[in-house]
Amino acid sequence: MGQYSYLSHLECPKCGLIYHTTGVQQLCTCGSPLNARYDLDSLKKEWNPEAIQGREMNLWRYHELLPVREPEHVITLGEGMTPLLRMPSLGMDMAIPQLYMKDEGLTPSGSFKSRGAAVGISKAKELGVSKFAMPTNGNAGAAWSLYAARAGIQATIVMPVDAPLITRNECIAAGADLYLVNGLISDAGKIVADKVRSEGIYDASTLKEPYRIEGKKTMGLEIAEQLGWQMPDVILYPTGGGVGLIGIYKGLLELQELGFVTGRLPKLVAVQAAGCAPIVKAWEQNASESEFWSDSQTIAFGINVPKAIGDFLVLDAIYETDGAAIAVTEEEILSEQRLSARLEGSFICPEGAAAFAAARILRANGWIQDNEKVIVLNTGSGIKYPETISGNVPLLNPGDTIPKALT
Amino acid sequence: MGQYSYLSHLECPKCGLIYHTTGVQQLCTCGSPLNARYDLDSLKKEWNPEAIQGREMNLWRYHELLPVREPEHVITLGEGMTPLLRMPSLGMDMAIPQLYMKDEGLTPSGSFKSRGAAVGISKAKELGVSKFAMPTNGNAGAAWSLYAARAGIQATIVMPVDAPLITRNECIAAGADLYLVNGLISDAGKIVADKVRSEGIYDASTLKEPYRIEGKKTMGLEIAEQLGWQMPDVILYPTGGGVGLIGIYKGLLELQELGFVTGRLPKLVAVQAAGCAPIVKAWEQNASESEFWSDSQTIAFGINVPKAIGDFLVLDAIYETDGAAIAVTEEEILSEQRLSARLEGSFICPEGAAAFAAARILRANGWIQDNEKVIVLNTGSGIKYPETISGNVPLLNPGDTIPKALT
Repeated sequence: MGQYSYLSHLECPKCGLIYHTTGVQQLCTCGSPLNARYDLDSLKKEWNPEAIQGREMNLWRYHELLPVREPEHVITLGEGMTPLLRMPSLGMDMAIPQLYMKDEGLTPSGSFKSRGAAVGISKAKELGVSKFAMPTNGNAGAAWSLYAARAGIQATIVMPVDAPLITRNECIAAGADLYLVNGLISDAGKIVADKVRSEGIYDASTLKEPYRIEGKKTMGLEIAEQLGWQMPDVILYPTGGGVGLIGIYKGLLELQELGFVTGRLPKLVAVQAAGCAPIVKAWEQNASESEFWSDSQTIAFGINVPKAIGDFLVLDAIYETDGAAIAVTEEEILSEQRLSARLEGSFICPEGAAAFAAARILRANGWIQDNEKVIVLNTGSGIKYPETISGNVPLLNPGDTIPKALT
Repeated sequence: MGQYSYLSHLECPKCGLIYHTTGVQQLCTCGSPLNARYDLDSLKKEWNPEAIQGREMNLWRYHELLPVREPEHVITLGEGMTPLLRMPSLGMDMAIPQLYMKDEGLTPSGSFKSRGAAVGISKAKELGVSKFAMPTNGNAGAAWSLYAARAGIQATIVMPVDAPLITRNECIAAGADLYLVNGLISDAGKIVADKVRSEGIYDASTLKEPYRIEGKKTMGLEIAEQLGWQMPDVILYPTGGGVGLIGIYKGLLELQELGFVTGRLPKLVAVQAAGCAPIVKAWEQNASESEFWSDSQTIAFGINVPKAIGDFLVLDAIYETDGAAIAVTEEEILSEQRLSARLEGSFICPEGAAAFAAARILRANGWIQDNEKVIVLNTGSGIKYPETISGNVPLLNPGDTIPKALT
């Protein structure tokens, strides 16, 4: 019988320092985020795709590759194993016949942030954490508040006043201590840093604890499993903090080392909004880090992140996979969101729409080639963004009839 | 090799008349909704729980018991096999240790209406339907609009002006012809009936076509499978049109006939709001049909249905299973919604909250007994109902700190 988790240690990707996993650990002393490492050599001898087949259809089916050591510490709301859907009509419209969407709208809290929250909160509980604070652009705060409530952990959340309104309600409903800031997520981050420093509570900011990314990497594991343990050619990911992209990359590398998949990794594409494109700028300059993007703005609020702490990891994943970084306009985002609903019946979030818009551009300019298998991450449900859709709707009175000409 | 579907005929539950399934069929000539019937004798010889085990994790895993004959007519967005979650803290709070939630928030469009839409639209496509009209309290119209878009079918939707705003956006995004009515779903129904009569298009109103319920019954199939082909003791369902409850009942009866489950059917409980409780009133009077409920009102908008066309089927399912019908107040609904988020991290819709409130009452008065296994249907995600949660949130400026006393 194998272990529930094969977590072995934490490792700094910058300076190589190693840490134990028995206590709370945040950043490396050098300031870099830490990576969770697993005993893949042992796991390889005991684990294979068949072992996973009959398991529960959520992300805990990969528990050996997740950091939670005891099953009783798992806090789950059924997250993961979201649909990988063919998008034939939209694909035809953009000349990508093998276009797929990984639909993260079908998650507790309606966004992919549930993955990081489920694993991050479960591990925090295992480590005895009773309070944490985090800045958020909305969806992560909502997800962490809800999982924290299920775990009995106290959450302090700071989000921009412009974050999607519904994410406020989720935090309030969950009983979190919620604060709005008249600024960006970077301003929220400073307020959280101050609180963490002055009170010594757990810092659940992006990549400042090493386990959220382990939840996110399950998107990569699922894509591989859902394609029959084959790699796609391209994965496009709407990139704010970029943890999902780093996570997918990490997950696929681990699968490769375990022998679950072989061959070339997919080209990873970081998609940003033209109004907030620090990663794109850095990639275009072949830089290894990004610069703070001033006066950032986009309707795809989740990717309004002017400077990501893990920018060097995102860029590394792009360079290593011969990927790309690309910015799209607000018009392109809204147009793609509408098209996805009209052609495929899928009401996606603006961040997901940005990634579809990027696929269209990269196909048109030849970067995506004929018959490549292309996966777009839709990171959340469109129903969290009511302001992205509008239209005039006729108002009838009881007894009225619908005029035939109009239909 | 078996058939993809074992659909055999349509049957009237009132007058017994039989219809073919090759063409479009709406109500029986006697005015009753029709039931889809399957060749269960043949299916029984070829089908068993093991055959289902490795299948795709959506409702099409039960395709033999669904009406779509050809797999290429299936229109899917990955709906079904939603989590069946333990609710230990809420269960302890209401003295129901074996409390479970079937969480229909994890569906395309964020509500269980996706099930009926997926099967209803797929079958409509198979039958060559190109246009339909339907009245809705919001969520069904949203789901049918989106699946119709994926199928290339034109939808005309009429909903009350008070229906959840986000459901309007979903219809608009999908390209449906949407109309609001200054009244209730019953008023919308009359407008649709007029359009159907004058233009001869397909009527997708609740139970006026026989296939939506086949999608809904998969909730019953899934609950049985997720419990290891065991029956629970009680299922509580927030009841507007009641199709879900009738569907669950139909599904469990079919499983019984197939030998997948044995023993007593669960007691089925129809939950309504005190402001719109026609089924409850009828049940209390031991009646076989309900009366129109005047001036109906409730924040649980999905169950604001003053008179359901399938009321006699709902009541029959309750009587046959020794179930019950119960009304809950607005305060009980909102309180249970908040509790579910605080104790379990699940942000449920007000309709689902109504069903939890009913479980609490029925346990307190002894109707639900010690250690019974109780399933509550949460029919949708709370994120579709932003108006149900409010709170004062402090607004900070960049550079501010969070005052310690407040946290």
